[in-house]
Amino acid sequence: MSSADLGLLSPMRGAGEATGDQAVLRAMLEAELALARIQAPAEAVAAIERACAAMAELSDLAALVELARAGGNPVIPLVERLRAAVGEHARWVHAGATSQDILDTALMLITRRTLGPLLADLDIVIGGLIRLARDHRDTPMAARTLTQQAVPTTFGLKAAGWRKLAIDARRRLAVLELPAQLGGPAGTLDPALTAAFAREVGLAVPLLPWHVLRAPVADLAGALAFTCGALGKLAADVLVLSRGEIGELSEGVGGSSSSMPHKHNPVRAVMIAAAARQVPALTSILYGSLAAEDERPPGAWHAEWQPLREALRLAAGAARDAAELVSGLRVHPDRMRANLAVPGSTGAAADLVTRALEDTP
Amino acid sequence: MSSADLGLLSPMRGAGEATGDQAVLRAMLEAELALARIQAPAEAVAAIERACAAMAELSDLAALVELARAGGNPVIPLVERLRAAVGEHARWVHAGATSQDILDTALMLITRRTLGPLLADLDIVIGGLIRLARDHRDTPMAARTLTQQAVPTTFGLKAAGWRKLAIDARRRLAVLELPAQLGGPAGTLDPALTAAFAREVGLAVPLLPWHVLRAPVADLAGALAFTCGALGKLAADVLVLSRGEIGELSEGVGGSSSSMPHKHNPVRAVMIAAAARQVPALTSILYGSLAAEDERPPGAWHAEWQPLREALRLAAGAARDAAELVSGLRVHPDRMRANLAVPGSTGAAADLVTRALEDTP
Amino acid sequence: MSSADLGLLSPMRGAGEATGDQAVLRAMLEAELALARIQAPAEAVAAIERACAAMAELSDLAALVELARAGGNPVIPLVERLRAAVGEHARWVHAGATSQDILDTALMLITRRTLGPLLADLDIVIGGLIRLARDHRDTPMAARTLTQQAVPTTFGLKAAGWRKLAIDARRRLAVLELPAQLGGPAGTLDPALTAAFAREVGLAVPLLPWHVLRAPVADLAGALAFTCGALGKLAADVLVLSRGEIGELSEGVGGSSSSMPHKHNPVRAVMIAAAARQVPALTSILYGSLAAEDERPPGAWHAEWQPLREALRLAAGAARDAAELVSGLRVHPDRMRANLAVPGSTGAAADLVTRALEDTP
Amino acid sequence: MSSADLGLLSPMRGAGEATGDQAVLRAMLEAELALARIQAPAEAVAAIERACAAMAELSDLAALVELARAGGNPVIPLVERLRAAVGEHARWVHAGATSQDILDTALMLITRRTLGPLLADLDIVIGGLIRLARDHRDTPMAARTLTQQAVPTTFGLKAAGWRKLAIDARRRLAVLELPAQLGGPAGTLDPALTAAFAREVGLAVPLLPWHVLRAPVADLAGALAFTCGALGKLAADVLVLSRGEIGELSEGVGGSSSSMPHKHNPVRAVMIAAAARQVPALTSILYGSLAAEDERPPGAWHAEWQPLREALRLAAGAARDAAELVSGLRVHPDRMRANLAVPGSTGAAADLVTRALEDTP
Repeated sequence: MSSADLGLLSPMRGAGEATGDQAVLRAMLEAELALARIQAPAEAVAAIERACAAMAELSDLAALVELARAGGNPVIPLVERLRAAVGEHARWVHAGATSQDILDTALMLITRRTLGPLLADLDIVIGGLIRLARDHRDTPMAARTLTQQAVPTTFGLKAAGWRKLAIDARRRLAVLELPAQLGGPAGTLDPALTAAFAREVGLAVPLLPWHVLRAPVADLAGALAFTCGALGKLAADVLVLSRGEIGELSEGVGGSSSSMPHKHNPVRAVMIAAAARQVPALTSILYGSLAAEDERPPGAWHAEWQPLREALRLAAGAARDAAELVSGLRVHPDRMRANLAVPGSTGAAADLVTRALEDTP
Repeated sequence: MSSADLGLLSPMRGAGEATGDQAVLRAMLEAELALARIQAPAEAVAAIERACAAMAELSDLAALVELARAGGNPVIPLVERLRAAVGEHARWVHAGATSQDILDTALMLITRRTLGPLLADLDIVIGGLIRLARDHRDTPMAARTLTQQAVPTTFGLKAAGWRKLAIDARRRLAVLELPAQLGGPAGTLDPALTAAFAREVGLAVPLLPWHVLRAPVADLAGALAFTCGALGKLAADVLVLSRGEIGELSEGVGGSSSSMPHKHNPVRAVMIAAAARQVPALTSILYGSLAAEDERPPGAWHAEWQPLREALRLAAGAARDAAELVSGLRVHPDRMRANLAVPGSTGAAADLVTRALEDTP
Repeated sequence: MSSADLGLLSPMRGAGEATGDQAVLRAMLEAELALARIQAPAEAVAAIERACAAMAELSDLAALVELARAGGNPVIPLVERLRAAVGEHARWVHAGATSQDILDTALMLITRRTLGPLLADLDIVIGGLIRLARDHRDTPMAARTLTQQAVPTTFGLKAAGWRKLAIDARRRLAVLELPAQLGGPAGTLDPALTAAFAREVGLAVPLLPWHVLRAPVADLAGALAFTCGALGKLAADVLVLSRGEIGELSEGVGGSSSSMPHKHNPVRAVMIAAAARQVPALTSILYGSLAAEDERPPGAWHAEWQPLREALRLAAGAARDAAELVSGLRVHPDRMRANLAVPGSTGAAADLVTRALEDTP
Repeated sequence: MSSADLGLLSPMRGAGEATGDQAVLRAMLEAELALARIQAPAEAVAAIERACAAMAELSDLAALVELARAGGNPVIPLVERLRAAVGEHARWVHAGATSQDILDTALMLITRRTLGPLLADLDIVIGGLIRLARDHRDTPMAARTLTQQAVPTTFGLKAAGWRKLAIDARRRLAVLELPAQLGGPAGTLDPALTAAFAREVGLAVPLLPWHVLRAPVADLAGALAFTCGALGKLAADVLVLSRGEIGELSEGVGGSSSSMPHKHNPVRAVMIAAAARQVPALTSILYGSLAAEDERPPGAWHAEWQPLREALRLAAGAARDAAELVSGLRVHPDRMRANLAVPGSTGAAADLVTRALEDTP
């Protein structure tokens, strides 16, 4: 029986293929190949390229996973296999590098490939929320504080607030620097080589090797937690407002139930809410790994890999679910008006919407 | 390209097959079949049994995973498939149950199957540490506090302390109640049915359906965090004492390096340390899910599944790594003596070892 | 201007006096005095007792706090002051002990003094919930899953579930072992002395010094997170059901608003919910400190003190707030009936209440 | 007996006076006074100013804390007292505002006052590390990976890495936007009023009221966790390298011990390490509060206050301790050379130092 995890217990995940073990393997092979390209003779590069292409289709990933246990990381058996495959060119495989160079670079590649669709989904969210905010700039509804109705607001202002957070998330993700890693065993490799490597793999050139200067991972972690929280605000409001007794919003599609066909569950919001509950804790692991002793810490680095991948998946899934949710959201202005129990003006709500929509991502 | 995660980024995981998606699928099918057995006519049971057996070999788990997105849980498409497979007996599939009944029961089955080997590994740890504690009851070594040498202790006392924590972890795991879940959509199902179901799947009978009374999950989470922390203490000491400049311990096998063949890395300790850094955060998600609104919360329950599985895997891996570490640990009493920089007696260290070893799991 | 924190930013805290710096100081003095009593000559004990009594009224705690910075713990300056105060008997102050002996013992004393009232408040909660469960065994109301109405349940079953969790919390707190700490600098002190000390301060006798065997702290952390989560379930339901549009419950007193006098906020539930959001994260710090290197770790121990105190305060506050909430809770069966949108029977709800109430704390 | 917490259990805290309850009270009063200044007649402003000045010296803060329990926040009783104090001008007190406007604004004021000294301490750290990096650009020492010696590096490169992280932390703190909060009960207040208020209190003007758009708090949380982690890297290295058996670094002052006068503990590093263990978990609470339902959430907002304050204190303390640590750090190049067990060149270490020092904060 296989140990494969395809997401059966995490329907709120996205970016499956971009972050699966096969994708990680390929990204590690890209890093090894780039390393050869910047320093090896053409013949060796060609041999390594062939070996990498062959391994990229690896069908027995499980064997590699098992081998990774011995040394505690997947690069060691990967390099052994590559070296065996290229025969006389073996010394050009992994030349000058340390395992962390390959794995960190691979994780940044994976990250970049996840962030692309994630940002595209956020753009759908932002675009959908502009429409909702404009259309409902003046649609009165109850503001609610500590669960009780306060004076009125408008649904447009609520949507404009959701949009503001989505833009904030987008900005935090878009400015992330995703650097290549190449420092060699002690982080003392020639920076010219690092720069060439970074250009080859298409990642940013770091000021220093960041084996134990984990700003890129910490910043990414923070931005992912922010993103899930930002979308979590939208989800939290949808969950309240689509309660049967309130009925001011409903999801376009909605989920069914295994036992109650009459139900129309706000499933996309549930999925986002579940992601928003997980990522802050994963992020706490990643911030905790900043305090890494030595030139490679015994545990803090290893503790990053899976939580980082999981946070990427959850943020990507939350963005995808939010895009679907916003695109299909049904607004019920009649129920909003009917529910209004506290009289009063909507104040500057409409003006605030106008003001907020002037801000662009 | 597949999205499968086989553990490439988590070499510190254990219990792979017991916790993979295939195992979860089979456990869900077990639950559905048990449900049929306690209430359906023999013919329907036979049909459901055949359908479950066929699905247990499911080769396109990925399709099921994709379908699980729509309703936000994997039980909905599973039940649809089962019903389709049994034709006229469809009404006996999932009869009276809600998705959560099946998934919670499956997670408890997975848990039980993970805890068995985990406890066996802890027994190896405890057994190995008895030997170390006895053999080194009087072996003097520096006690170290805030990184500086204090008055001496003995290595036997250190090993006895590790053993105490391993026993503590074992006890916390061994007393866990792993109940079946069966309450129906609103948690109002006849408790006699729940009891019959629990006996059928071989899990404990709950006092009440625990859809939103998450004591079993919270207790499990606490015990897993405890276990990883307890083994993390052992790992933390091994990491310090196997530093080249100290050299009082070394791992029996040790890991190699992708760049430095001379190195002898304490890889098992690194793996345990990495697990111990992750599980407390995962546990914080699970404790956070206790505060679950309504009869099924919109997010808190869904946020449990993957962190719970991941915590199980990390604890199982830590126990396995600790068993290997302890079994092969090499002790260097000469270095312990040579390093002693602060004179003094070892006090009651030997007596404390004797006292501690009287405590049995 | 003072740096004192009296709880202005934490109205959800309880156990203020039992956990304040003055109480911690007194508990440390108790530990020092007990240490003298078990080994010093009568004259020295008398002198130390006088010095402790004088220091217990210390008006310039801020000065002691400032002095604690230098060595990184408050025991060092405390011992210096005590020694200065007793003159010739100075060698009997803190004899054989290490700072951690005193501080850990003090924290366990503080814990015991917090748990007393906390358990009493839980008893009020449990008692109040028995009444609610009995009175409303058959009161129909909507079960709600993923925010949508499912088939009906009864309010009595909901209350019985809350009670079950409160009993579970009580049990986890009541079985905690709160041991004294006395091991000396290397944890090698004569266990007979430790046992005498434990009896003198009225705490449990540990099997071994637990300077780096942090089971007592980890178990306490888990039980406090459990407690806040268990009460958090009650609070989460009250927050939903007291929404204006649902109106099935309301808090007896309720909070006012600084701007909207018409509001009746479910403030006790809000306070509990806020505590339940904080304690799991604090607990993750404490589980993380299990992996403590050496005979006293450089940071993991120090990181426990304030989170442990804060978790105690939040759990005590949550229990107090829950006692008030349950005692005054107003149930509106008419609204429960009026809101019922999905027809159906309440199934075995009433039977389940009966069954659940047979379980006693 | 008082419940005051002055920091006895948190010697790693800084910014005591800037964050104490008295400072929070004064900041709330500043906000109330600013609110009057932008809208009330001169006579009312004068009366409110007198009342605020009187309350700022409040000697019975404990009474206010107790009153804050009823409504679950400290602004409600504060406003009551101010209104009572100004008699006929009462309607100009808190006019148009909601509790959250005052408390959020006060927390941002507190934050600004904490960040000033914190950034100054980081500048001391950065300045001290420039000197260490330059002086030891070519000082060879062992690089260590997974606790074992790898090929050599230089101490200058290690110091340059610490500096890089300190600069990174400084940048993340320096760009934080600290906005005023003024939106009224539903967040629909005229933005011109909000802008005037922001100018009056000297904080940034928000695009929208951020009652439930918690980007400012989340960003602050992330930056504080980053800062503690960045300094935690420095501390982790100092803790390893000042171990007796390694002896390559020692703290200038060092801490004593309550039982072992010979010890020279790396106390500043211990304090920083302890802070770095706490803040990621506190930050997870604050990221978790982004997902805030309605126009004011029942718990998520309240759960922010104390963790935010505590994170500020720990980051401020870590920066202060790091400034002291770096200023007094003693480097032992002879021990570095003597410990070198693996031969080899220091590669481009010196060049990397030069490169790194060109980067300025």
